[in-house]
Amino acid sequence: MTGKNLKRLRLEMEKEGVDIYVMTLADYHMSEYVGDYFKEIEYISGFTGTNATLIVTADEAGLWTDGRYFIQAREQMDGSGVKLYEIGTEGVPTVEQFIESHLIEGKVLAFDGRLFPYNWYKKIEKIVDKKNADIRTDLNLLDSFFKERKPLPKEPVFILEEKYSGKSTKDKLSEVRAQMKKYGAEGYLLTSLCDIAWLLNLRGNDIPSVPVFMSYIYITQESCFLYAQAESFDVKTLEYLNNEGVRLLSYEAIYSDLHHIDQKSVLIDPDVVNSELVNELPSSVTLIKKPNPTLLMKAVKNPTEIKNTEAAHIDDGLAVTRFIYWLKHTVGKEPITEMSAADKLLEFRKAADDFIEVSFDTISAYKENAALMHYEPGHDHEVELKPEGMLLVDSGGHYYRGTTDITRTIVLGPISEKEKKAFTYTLRSHLRLMKAKFPKGACGANLDILARGPMWDLGLDYRCGTGHGVGHILNVHEGPNAFRWNVKNAEACTPLLPGMITSDEPGLYFEGEFGIRTESEILVVEDEKTEYGQFYSFKDLTYCPIDLDAVIPELLTQYEREALNAYHADVYETLAPRLPKEEAAWLKEATRAI
Amino acid sequence: MTGKNLKRLRLEMEKEGVDIYVMTLADYHMSEYVGDYFKEIEYISGFTGTNATLIVTADEAGLWTDGRYFIQAREQMDGSGVKLYEIGTEGVPTVEQFIESHLIEGKVLAFDGRLFPYNWYKKIEKIVDKKNADIRTDLNLLDSFFKERKPLPKEPVFILEEKYSGKSTKDKLSEVRAQMKKYGAEGYLLTSLCDIAWLLNLRGNDIPSVPVFMSYIYITQESCFLYAQAESFDVKTLEYLNNEGVRLLSYEAIYSDLHHIDQKSVLIDPDVVNSELVNELPSSVTLIKKPNPTLLMKAVKNPTEIKNTEAAHIDDGLAVTRFIYWLKHTVGKEPITEMSAADKLLEFRKAADDFIEVSFDTISAYKENAALMHYEPGHDHEVELKPEGMLLVDSGGHYYRGTTDITRTIVLGPISEKEKKAFTYTLRSHLRLMKAKFPKGACGANLDILARGPMWDLGLDYRCGTGHGVGHILNVHEGPNAFRWNVKNAEACTPLLPGMITSDEPGLYFEGEFGIRTESEILVVEDEKTEYGQFYSFKDLTYCPIDLDAVIPELLTQYEREALNAYHADVYETLAPRLPKEEAAWLKEATRAI
Repeated sequence: MTGKNLKRLRLEMEKEGVDIYVMTLADYHMSEYVGDYFKEIEYISGFTGTNATLIVTADEAGLWTDGRYFIQAREQMDGSGVKLYEIGTEGVPTVEQFIESHLIEGKVLAFDGRLFPYNWYKKIEKIVDKKNADIRTDLNLLDSFFKERKPLPKEPVFILEEKYSGKSTKDKLSEVRAQMKKYGAEGYLLTSLCDIAWLLNLRGNDIPSVPVFMSYIYITQESCFLYAQAESFDVKTLEYLNNEGVRLLSYEAIYSDLHHIDQKSVLIDPDVVNSELVNELPSSVTLIKKPNPTLLMKAVKNPTEIKNTEAAHIDDGLAVTRFIYWLKHTVGKEPITEMSAADKLLEFRKAADDFIEVSFDTISAYKENAALMHYEPGHDHEVELKPEGMLLVDSGGHYYRGTTDITRTIVLGPISEKEKKAFTYTLRSHLRLMKAKFPKGACGANLDILARGPMWDLGLDYRCGTGHGVGHILNVHEGPNAFRWNVKNAEACTPLLPGMITSDEPGLYFEGEFGIRTESEILVVEDEKTEYGQFYSFKDLTYCPIDLDAVIPELLTQYEREALNAYHADVYETLAPRLPKEEAAWLKEATRAI
Repeated sequence: MTGKNLKRLRLEMEKEGVDIYVMTLADYHMSEYVGDYFKEIEYISGFTGTNATLIVTADEAGLWTDGRYFIQAREQMDGSGVKLYEIGTEGVPTVEQFIESHLIEGKVLAFDGRLFPYNWYKKIEKIVDKKNADIRTDLNLLDSFFKERKPLPKEPVFILEEKYSGKSTKDKLSEVRAQMKKYGAEGYLLTSLCDIAWLLNLRGNDIPSVPVFMSYIYITQESCFLYAQAESFDVKTLEYLNNEGVRLLSYEAIYSDLHHIDQKSVLIDPDVVNSELVNELPSSVTLIKKPNPTLLMKAVKNPTEIKNTEAAHIDDGLAVTRFIYWLKHTVGKEPITEMSAADKLLEFRKAADDFIEVSFDTISAYKENAALMHYEPGHDHEVELKPEGMLLVDSGGHYYRGTTDITRTIVLGPISEKEKKAFTYTLRSHLRLMKAKFPKGACGANLDILARGPMWDLGLDYRCGTGHGVGHILNVHEGPNAFRWNVKNAEACTPLLPGMITSDEPGLYFEGEFGIRTESEILVVEDEKTEYGQFYSFKDLTYCPIDLDAVIPELLTQYEREALNAYHADVYETLAPRLPKEEAAWLKEATRAI
């Protein structure tokens, strides 16, 4: 059986003479999350996961996704005529291998070049050349029949004032221009939305929970052209852009404009810039291929961002702490579901004057649901909480002052010894990383074992990184810093620098039973300088109790116990003055030294 | 003032029309240690350190070396007319930068191409091309006047029987040939002496403490040509080579032979093969540049090598233990010096039937001498030991069964609280790494913090790796495995595999005061396999007490104390039955649980 939309796509392929059509879940900026406009794969196959590539030929259709989505993809694509290709499973060809084995001389492979990064295009181009086939990247075959496609969002853009951003766009631009000179690049094409928003001290609302706006930037030593949707800008932001020396042009105009640039060399990040843009550049241009210099600049938070983020975390921790108090005192007395709990938490967060929105969809996962790392509660599968077991809540907020991301696993009633042990092991991992002290130059791959080691000792592990960088009122997941152990991963090997904020979120997940994660955010700060060099350590930014009801003190070392007690003393001291009396009294007990 | 030999070199340069002459301390095989034949830099500059590059122009002469040798180089080159360039010191140009700034159009840069790896040659060639200068690599300007040059060694070669090597040369060759096919290489030029000795199950004596012999190998799917010095082979080894399908040719003939090979593609390790060899290959040959596949094959010890090495370590540990007993009971009663102590240790080692030689020059360093990591005792600076302070002894042996490397820091009498603390911190580091458990894929850069972390916590560190791979009756330093934290270092990022043997040797060094190092060798072994994959851990190969006289038990965690007690129980159980009664009684006390 073949889905209706897949049939329509094949008709278009026939009409245009396309033999293999490749689609991916991406936007023109390689954003981690994309707006509804870009949900083409869901339209063709029914699959809604966030990692997907779809290849269609006259008689085959295959979807590639990773282990998180195998079950979901099989269910959602049932009857669609699309076959699942499990990424990473032995014997399963990669997208590139599939293309290589299906492409034959004289045939045409096509994809929308705006949705694929330049590096991927170059890889495919090699295969196409080898096969003496043809490649087309200038058409989107869905445009003619995907009538239900949501429009491209054009939400209002707002200024993040310097009291929040800590550095003017003029200053940021001159740092970028200095880096361009260093690289010998006359022009710089920047297309990642978070980097543009950071550079211009502007925020938008075009992607849920990621306050960015659809845009490209082209920078030279003299000019800065912003290609964005005019409807998103009001008089104030237009004036602001003008003052900062940024000229606004229409979003789509970048493609034709690039064709006429005078610069002889252009800096691009070939893993980020879409291939259609690069192919529009005059052929005489020398490409300078480097990671976006803005990536590191934005990851190292400035003193204003740090001060504000610290303050936002106190408000955010207060909200989560009040939520925990409410939850523990209400469960079993009033009906609460995973969803309604998440709604209640949002209410607490909204108490902060400058709260903007959640920084990602709240994961509120009860009992065995928490074993699915990316579980999302929904109104179509309401799960009621009872005074037993644990609720894992992974949530965060964007405030004008900064962005938060926190996970606490909360005991609602009796739990098993296995749950307590797993909670305590996770806590050991969490604390050991948080207390790290390390020299300049050390990176996530060096530190990861501090968290994972106690679990490895027991033959346990978690199938994800230990922590990710956090954006400042941008994507809650941000590079280039991370805690991971695979030295082939660039983020794992990025040296940690003062000002970087990374999550510390080890966990243990037992399918069908329960899941535990404890997450705080930790800021790299300068520690002592000795004859062995400059040392760094972490400052914990998150103020919220870790549930002692699930801790087996005897399983903690003295070092870990002291770390936990010191952390809890800090939490109490910081939050108690801002809590109602009975909640403060509860917090005193919840943060007692053990 | 200019040294006589430097003047003679400049005369030769003038005669040959050479404007810049570059020399390095290396042999034709890029060995870590080289024979006396290759000590050209010492002849010109007086400098004897193991890391040295010398550049001579008509009016300048500069020597590049690293931090270990700054003081020594300055002393030794005083009055030589050679200027010291400190590698790593800010503002000091690199060798390449110096060449680039001194080379001008039409001038001639020369070096003996046999002494530099191909990759370095390519780097210099680029500079030379850019400058429109010329390059010569076919002459050694010292040959005409370095009459005191020691001859190239031609020591006898012997067979390492299969009961020791565990795998026949035929089998090793077929593994190498399979890898050549995988790489699409018709020929394979292997020039590193340790890899050749390993592949052929032959050992020699051409480099002190590294039982290898001067040789090159060229392999095709059908043939294996060994280029070596005929004088080193007796009838038995010649017959052996014949049986294994290896044809012996004269050492020097490789250069002309390579010029006439039929293979269209040749595998080389461009960081190891000397540039002159590569330049002899027909220009039509495609170079397949990869690390030598033998590197990993030789690092992963086979069951026979492991079993034998384990046995050798017991004999070796026995020798060091007896030495410690003797030292503690003799110091202050009979005169002992650093040198005579080392000699005594050698005596104990010689008790093993199959002892061949020391695996490196023994470091026997008393008190503040131990703060110099590479201190060597000498008859020109006899230091007498007294019943106070500590003696650091880093030593090892080659046995037919395997190679050892061990360091113990031995208490000779009263020591300070600072010494005890440093000893205990070092012990913590040593034990934590030894007890690591980690999944398949993890590498030294992931584990290094286990050793270094407790020191970093105190703002302390040591200025070297935590451990190196150990050869099997080859170089005691062997890649590709190591414990280091710098993720830019290839060894730090090589996944640890069962069968790899690496040293675990953290230390603390206080200049002018004392130095401490505790070193054992640890073997990667399979641990449990869980749903999270295959785990590995370490087996400690070294049996020798760690001096409890310097341990402050209260500074150890329970985990560390248990690890130490378990290790000591093992040491006692293994060695006691082989010791005289009074030594066994002493060992019982020396390995008591704390």
